[in-house]
Amino acid sequence: MRNSTRGAVDPFIVMDVMEAARQAEQAGRHIIHMEVGQPGTPAPAAARDALAKAMQDESLGYTVALGLPALRSRIAQLYGEWYNVDLDPGRVVVTPGSSGGFILAFSALFDAGDRVALGAPGYPSYRQILKAMNLVPVEVQSSAENRLQPTPADLEAVDYQGLMVASPANPTGTMLGRPELSALISAAQARGAAFLSDEIYHGIEYEAKAVSALEISDDVCVINSFSKYFSMTGWRAGWLVLPEDNIRQVERLAQNMFICAPHASQLAALAAMDAGDELEQNMAVYRKNRALMLEGLPQAGFDRIAPPDGAFYVYADISHLTDDSRAFARAILDEAGVAVTPGLDFDPVRGGGTLRFSYARSTADIEEGLERLRGFMQARGHI
Amino acid sequence: MRNSTRGAVDPFIVMDVMEAARQAEQAGRHIIHMEVGQPGTPAPAAARDALAKAMQDESLGYTVALGLPALRSRIAQLYGEWYNVDLDPGRVVVTPGSSGGFILAFSALFDAGDRVALGAPGYPSYRQILKAMNLVPVEVQSSAENRLQPTPADLEAVDYQGLMVASPANPTGTMLGRPELSALISAAQARGAAFLSDEIYHGIEYEAKAVSALEISDDVCVINSFSKYFSMTGWRAGWLVLPEDNIRQVERLAQNMFICAPHASQLAALAAMDAGDELEQNMAVYRKNRALMLEGLPQAGFDRIAPPDGAFYVYADISHLTDDSRAFARAILDEAGVAVTPGLDFDPVRGGGTLRFSYARSTADIEEGLERLRGFMQARGHI
Repeated sequence: MRNSTRGAVDPFIVMDVMEAARQAEQAGRHIIHMEVGQPGTPAPAAARDALAKAMQDESLGYTVALGLPALRSRIAQLYGEWYNVDLDPGRVVVTPGSSGGFILAFSALFDAGDRVALGAPGYPSYRQILKAMNLVPVEVQSSAENRLQPTPADLEAVDYQGLMVASPANPTGTMLGRPELSALISAAQARGAAFLSDEIYHGIEYEAKAVSALEISDDVCVINSFSKYFSMTGWRAGWLVLPEDNIRQVERLAQNMFICAPHASQLAALAAMDAGDELEQNMAVYRKNRALMLEGLPQAGFDRIAPPDGAFYVYADISHLTDDSRAFARAILDEAGVAVTPGLDFDPVRGGGTLRFSYARSTADIEEGLERLRGFMQARGHI
Repeated sequence: MRNSTRGAVDPFIVMDVMEAARQAEQAGRHIIHMEVGQPGTPAPAAARDALAKAMQDESLGYTVALGLPALRSRIAQLYGEWYNVDLDPGRVVVTPGSSGGFILAFSALFDAGDRVALGAPGYPSYRQILKAMNLVPVEVQSSAENRLQPTPADLEAVDYQGLMVASPANPTGTMLGRPELSALISAAQARGAAFLSDEIYHGIEYEAKAVSALEISDDVCVINSFSKYFSMTGWRAGWLVLPEDNIRQVERLAQNMFICAPHASQLAALAAMDAGDELEQNMAVYRKNRALMLEGLPQAGFDRIAPPDGAFYVYADISHLTDDSRAFARAILDEAGVAVTPGLDFDPVRGGGTLRFSYARSTADIEEGLERLRGFMQARGHI
């Protein structure tokens, strides 16, 4: 049968690494997974308990398209707790993960041919979803002195109808401070472009609290999810916050394109939001893992790293060692038994010289992984 | 913030009815719900038990994009059980509901501007999703003598790159027999158009088994879901079956656009597929309700009805009574306390003269609803 042109999106290069890791494990080898972009922990116990109970008492049919009213209210409350922002629950839209949030927001805000500016490196699916929806991703190469985040100066000569940023970012973990975020929002608004802020890693931050675009302006689209801080990746529940004037259009699109986010996941998410103790235990692990990474990676020769303000990634420049991060990652897997992500997925231009290391898994795995990486780099004569 | 043009999809007209019903209930009135498009039953007990257990033992992170291998295999097995079709599990893609299936299939098969032919009346979201994805829905008015299903003759003068049918259909419940379905598949293939078969109501059929497009050709895209027969609407789990040559493109799109269908829902769906006894109990209720409807609706003056071969709907022509089905539905709600769906959602051209009655809820509700409808029509002098 026919295939479309717009559907011919790029493969994830890390899939090769993951498949090779799977084969190695099947052959009996022990692999440390530093390529994964998700917590190893399950949803909080309170979330699972709430769902177990609801499954006995409720039929869990469709919810209304914008999401369970109690969940929308609880999300609005989070903006008070985290940012001291007073948010109308009517502006919150529960989505099937942030993935569903992107599809909804892009459909609601942009027409075919519209251009959406993104910083590179960045989450690869931004590019691919935009392409599949007949939008044009315009990637701006960010620089190390700007923490690998875009700046208004980078965007000056760029034509765009939308600008999307992420802070903390994937793959770098770097954050935009309030002045930097404000400047980007102003730049977009000055040219009538929509400003989208991917805040999926909020809550996973170490030295300073991440700044929400909603602290700065109401005229933005915020995308978030229960996947990371709330440890619910597989549940596919997230949310959007939009200006009031955009809600009606998003509601109609959601009714037709998704009907609703998974009911069970919405109930679990609602309970997860009050599972502070368990979530902070997860954070304690990330904090410990991060400290180990910040000490161990430079010792292993990976010392050109972006400041990992948040999330659970370290992005390392290895362009002095190789221009083929895919082959380098494969060698690390084959020789050291550590799976890592080549930068090419995040930055087709410069990613041949970068790697992403995830520290989302157990501390024991991080310790073992760092030791293996050191051994690998020693054997290669890099340290 | 800016709103897109393509995102300006039509509202569901039934939402007015549902909101009015909600207000009536809040004011203390008792309303019979014949407007709903979903079972009143929960997911099968076996499905809920399986998930309750998995929540204790597994972390339920992302699954691979195409879905849990065990679920893909079990779905392939269903094609042997239901249709005696030998299906390669590699051709099955687990999706976030049939909604996610539409988004995936449309992205993978069609480019902006492509035209997709649909029969009217039909499921309204086909039109809206197509529009939101820059595709052109081409609605073909079907005729009562063809059971309100499109025919090759209806399509002869139509330019299209895709043809989508549904059997059993929503809102009519009518089915396409094997010769009729074969003729439509041949017509589409003869002009190089993709053929899509929405089989979401398969399993809910009364006089004869529904025919799957896969019994006729491998070169089709089948869309299905766990929502209806498996009674799992709110879980958002469905599937696609595609030709082998389309799987790679769909996989890459799924990785980027959805990451995966909800893990919990996939596990529940897998167990639901072996919950035959409970599902057959649901069917026994539908069967009884349908018999009541086929007797009671004509007695209430709704005697111009499409043959309800499957699903849980009866679609009635009331064009001799009104050309404003929206006002008529509102009057039924206000005067008789029965919520029904105006045909305008399914057929903007002729739907002013039609209503959809759902019999998905309890038999007691159906009995009470039919009595109220009879009273309403009597009071109006229609019977």
